[in-house]
Amino acid sequence: MTKLPKNAVFPEEERKRGFMLEGSSFLSDNIHKIDTSEIRRVFDLAQRLENPINLSIGQSDLPVPLPVQEELIKAIRDGKTGYTPTAGILPLREAIAHKWQTQNGFAVSPENILVSAGVAPLLFLLFETIINPQDHVLLIDPYFLIYPALLKYRGARLHFLREDFDSDDIERLLEQKIPLKAIVFSTPSNPTGRILEKEKLSLLIKLADKTGALLVSDEIYEVFDYDKKFVSTASLYPTGTLTLSGLSKSHSMTGLRIGYIGAPENLAPIVRKMATLQQYTVVCAPQPSQWAAIVALSTPVSEGVARMGRRRDLCQRLLKQCTSFPSPDGAFYIYPEIPVDSSIFVEEAIHRRLLLVPGYIFSQNRYHVRISYAQREDVLEEGLQIFCDLVRQLREEPSKV
Amino acid sequence: MTKLPKNAVFPEEERKRGFMLEGSSFLSDNIHKIDTSEIRRVFDLAQRLENPINLSIGQSDLPVPLPVQEELIKAIRDGKTGYTPTAGILPLREAIAHKWQTQNGFAVSPENILVSAGVAPLLFLLFETIINPQDHVLLIDPYFLIYPALLKYRGARLHFLREDFDSDDIERLLEQKIPLKAIVFSTPSNPTGRILEKEKLSLLIKLADKTGALLVSDEIYEVFDYDKKFVSTASLYPTGTLTLSGLSKSHSMTGLRIGYIGAPENLAPIVRKMATLQQYTVVCAPQPSQWAAIVALSTPVSEGVARMGRRRDLCQRLLKQCTSFPSPDGAFYIYPEIPVDSSIFVEEAIHRRLLLVPGYIFSQNRYHVRISYAQREDVLEEGLQIFCDLVRQLREEPSKV
Repeated sequence: MTKLPKNAVFPEEERKRGFMLEGSSFLSDNIHKIDTSEIRRVFDLAQRLENPINLSIGQSDLPVPLPVQEELIKAIRDGKTGYTPTAGILPLREAIAHKWQTQNGFAVSPENILVSAGVAPLLFLLFETIINPQDHVLLIDPYFLIYPALLKYRGARLHFLREDFDSDDIERLLEQKIPLKAIVFSTPSNPTGRILEKEKLSLLIKLADKTGALLVSDEIYEVFDYDKKFVSTASLYPTGTLTLSGLSKSHSMTGLRIGYIGAPENLAPIVRKMATLQQYTVVCAPQPSQWAAIVALSTPVSEGVARMGRRRDLCQRLLKQCTSFPSPDGAFYIYPEIPVDSSIFVEEAIHRRLLLVPGYIFSQNRYHVRISYAQREDVLEEGLQIFCDLVRQLREEPSKV
Repeated sequence: MTKLPKNAVFPEEERKRGFMLEGSSFLSDNIHKIDTSEIRRVFDLAQRLENPINLSIGQSDLPVPLPVQEELIKAIRDGKTGYTPTAGILPLREAIAHKWQTQNGFAVSPENILVSAGVAPLLFLLFETIINPQDHVLLIDPYFLIYPALLKYRGARLHFLREDFDSDDIERLLEQKIPLKAIVFSTPSNPTGRILEKEKLSLLIKLADKTGALLVSDEIYEVFDYDKKFVSTASLYPTGTLTLSGLSKSHSMTGLRIGYIGAPENLAPIVRKMATLQQYTVVCAPQPSQWAAIVALSTPVSEGVARMGRRRDLCQRLLKQCTSFPSPDGAFYIYPEIPVDSSIFVEEAIHRRLLLVPGYIFSQNRYHVRISYAQREDVLEEGLQIFCDLVRQLREEPSKV
């Protein structure tokens, strides 16, 4: 399929180019900074499995709540299927502002909210908007894998703070005098489920306050808060926090593509520039999903959350028998320690029909895996039995791998 | 709302930063390369109008076809609301491949098709994937406004070829020995409606062939082809063309966010890298829309197209009385010449309740406006009456503006 122009006007380059009408020769320097996570290789392996026990999934197994479904259908029937304003329909931005004010304890004007087709596009827009090459950014480790991928793509310099940090760690960071531009984290955390309690957030706020860094708080799992520990970062540090959230996880709307970001008035220029870039990239979030999101914001999911909480308890109980893990306060993940490199462990697990996500994509520490308990209880029991058997076997005979 | 840390560890920078916890000081150098088009100012003016005659809209006024609506609703009820594979569901990619093979006369493997949330995100992914700063890109002028915006954002060097180019223009370009990386155009064109007939495409292919440039053919308006002139670029130059299309315009699905790109085997690495970047940005197109897109691909829209064609004829007839315009072969736009700068013209039109899009956002030539005839016939007649009156008045008394 290579191709040589017959009648080149610049013989030299032309010949070279002719050979090069191969897609790979057209790739920009930049695009090589991003790569499919090795996770893909794992899932390619997994696709050959007949009846896998899948504890790798990053979305709830519960259906979209009926009132939300009905609103989607109503929007479609009512012809609400065209473009919306770039920032999202105003009633949705008002509903988000109201939710943050009444449930999360901080005020954001609907003017300073940007709705997009998920949190991932918002992270892309945000990092394009605020990150220059060589800017310093701090991530809480473990981190959601999209943060370092997009930040490296922007050429940022990454620093890591272990999730179990204390005030000494913050002091050490301050001593290093790193001019941090942003501190990015999720609470509840994907992949550990850990919620940053008020004391931890206060340490981050101290760090932000002294370095001038923005806090970027990804709260997409906020409703999955089993022990009522969750607190929104912006409620403690309103003028320095950008808050990200959405309905994907809480209302099983991952494929309906709604996420949003809010900024205080002093940081509004960031959201406005993000909206400008959205005009040329995302354009707008899907319209029916936007109307449905308004309904979702007033549709309680406490029953589903309670059920997920019981699964958390089940997993905790079963996993305690064979390993340790950070406190799984929320989200629907648990992040146990394993005795071998997570790449090896996950491959071994696949040979036992068990699908997990390797920890090395979420951390500088490779000795964990992410288990999602957004799965039926009987499947969880079977999967965790296999998991613990494998952990024990590898501890006893690590050479067998 | 400015903020000074009380206890700065780096007094100098800190003070500076303290003053700078203003969003604008966080903006990256890059983001300043993109700006809201002045069009926004026009529409802010327009929003104050009570009963505007809106000929500015870039979407069909016809509803989403019923079978497509029903499939959306079925997908929602069936719980097809979660994440899909990054590249899009396989049946949709198969349906697109089949459509291109049977209706457009070129072959693309479903493996080499990427579905995204519209053509705009695909353009962003494409330019990130293939454009380095200082790369040379040729646009057909007038162009769709997103092309130069995103290309400038990537730091590309733009060249322009007037839409009414002939073989002499191509020879002149070849003599300049510009190492073009890509030639980007829409056919039918937004904003002129012009379709690049086979002869014109052959000239572009000659240019591509001799310079080694990729052809990027945006065919989103392909069904709006009133005189059966349309030919897909890839059918003439299969190994050198990337084809973009979608259902937004043909099936009134702008707010449902489906676009797709296809590449020949030799250019597949481009689409694969775009898919990799999509994993971290778009994630996937909305799932219900993907299922509905399969139905849309086999749902004829000939009645709607015929109606749009009659409106084209109406506009042509009315506009001929006062001005000239490029041959409006397709899409639902007509691009008449005006006697003053389009920025001024559009503002004058607003004072007469008429909304148009100024040509300067589509062209280096500022003396045109874009009229959309995706509008009721009586509205069109009223609007074009105002338009022609204004053109005549400005020709007679240009000083009055």
